[in-house]
Amino acid sequence: MPMSRGCFITVEGTEGVGKTTNLDFIQQCLEQQGIDVVRTREPGGTPLAENIRELLLAPRDEPVSELTELLMMFAARAQHLKQVILPALDAGQWVLCDRFTDATYAYQGGGRGMDTRQISTLEQLVQADLRPDLTLLLDLPVKTGLARARARSTPDRFEAEKVNFFEAVRSHYLERARREPERFAVIDAEPALSQVQMQIKGALLRLGVRVDV
Amino acid sequence: MPMSRGCFITVEGTEGVGKTTNLDFIQQCLEQQGIDVVRTREPGGTPLAENIRELLLAPRDEPVSELTELLMMFAARAQHLKQVILPALDAGQWVLCDRFTDATYAYQGGGRGMDTRQISTLEQLVQADLRPDLTLLLDLPVKTGLARARARSTPDRFEAEKVNFFEAVRSHYLERARREPERFAVIDAEPALSQVQMQIKGALLRLGVRVDV
Repeated sequence: MPMSRGCFITVEGTEGVGKTTNLDFIQQCLEQQGIDVVRTREPGGTPLAENIRELLLAPRDEPVSELTELLMMFAARAQHLKQVILPALDAGQWVLCDRFTDATYAYQGGGRGMDTRQISTLEQLVQADLRPDLTLLLDLPVKTGLARARARSTPDRFEAEKVNFFEAVRSHYLERARREPERFAVIDAEPALSQVQMQIKGALLRLGVRVDV
Repeated sequence: MPMSRGCFITVEGTEGVGKTTNLDFIQQCLEQQGIDVVRTREPGGTPLAENIRELLLAPRDEPVSELTELLMMFAARAQHLKQVILPALDAGQWVLCDRFTDATYAYQGGGRGMDTRQISTLEQLVQADLRPDLTLLLDLPVKTGLARARARSTPDRFEAEKVNFFEAVRSHYLERARREPERFAVIDAEPALSQVQMQIKGALLRLGVRVDV
């Protein structure tokens, strides 16, 4: 019997929506069903891609051109796909990734107002027709998320952006979810964790994962 | 009187052809004519672009995907153009750059055998219609150049490539020069320095620079 290809699940959302906690939960759900899970994140996921991430996130005096930022994101992504994501999927493992190309559209396209045709040119170059099988968008009002994120740590270069920026990121995420309802599941991240997890279990059913947690 | 835009000169060639010595000479020729010259290099030319250069050149255990390398090159280039090259040209300064996009075509396209359509997609995205006004290609048989380069320093990740690789790079450079004879001047870098410099002075005449050195 040929090994079936793994599923590619991404988790998206603005700052403070609870990505880490919910990634832990998703991983636990999948592993309980005997699924071999590779958990990773973007930008990053390989030593070189993590080096690129450090360059991207470091506060610096030099103004960073939007196009430079975009190209660095996709450089890290190309490396991550080649070294980690594609080999895992081909080996039948499932890949669970903290952010992917939807984040690029939301942050660089929605937040910074870049022409999204530049993003789709690079998406096509780097991914060809690869897209996630399921994208969980954790959604929360921006002010609630930022208050949670700021209680936790010093803001990095992206987190230090203004509220308007994050409003634009959130709107762009929601608009993408509306346009691709089969791939996206929008999770309301505002209520108690148990209720958030109920929604996540519902979304995993789409991939045939029935969770008994 | 509106200030006229500066000229953009690039110097290309494989390892050990004498780029640094000849860049010094070109700079001296231009400055002697009262031209304000910004001398720079690729990959690099800004603090962030130099950081990307360090990531590109560092020997590493992780295999670097060709597409990652290409995207990092263009990320550095986008930053260099935005922060250094375009502002200088707009201010009427001349820009003298140690390697540019022809090197990407020669090394990644010729040397690594990447599909040059990927390179031209990125060239279009990052440069639109910007091309150098004059490109001096310093040409030398590969073995002569490598012997000179190796006498000088420990090879970095690119210099450690095999002779066949550099033969392909050289051929690709020469082919590009044949296709764009108005932009390229091929300089035979094998004879004595004084004869190389005579050829360079001849090429600078194309931009109206009459050198008395």
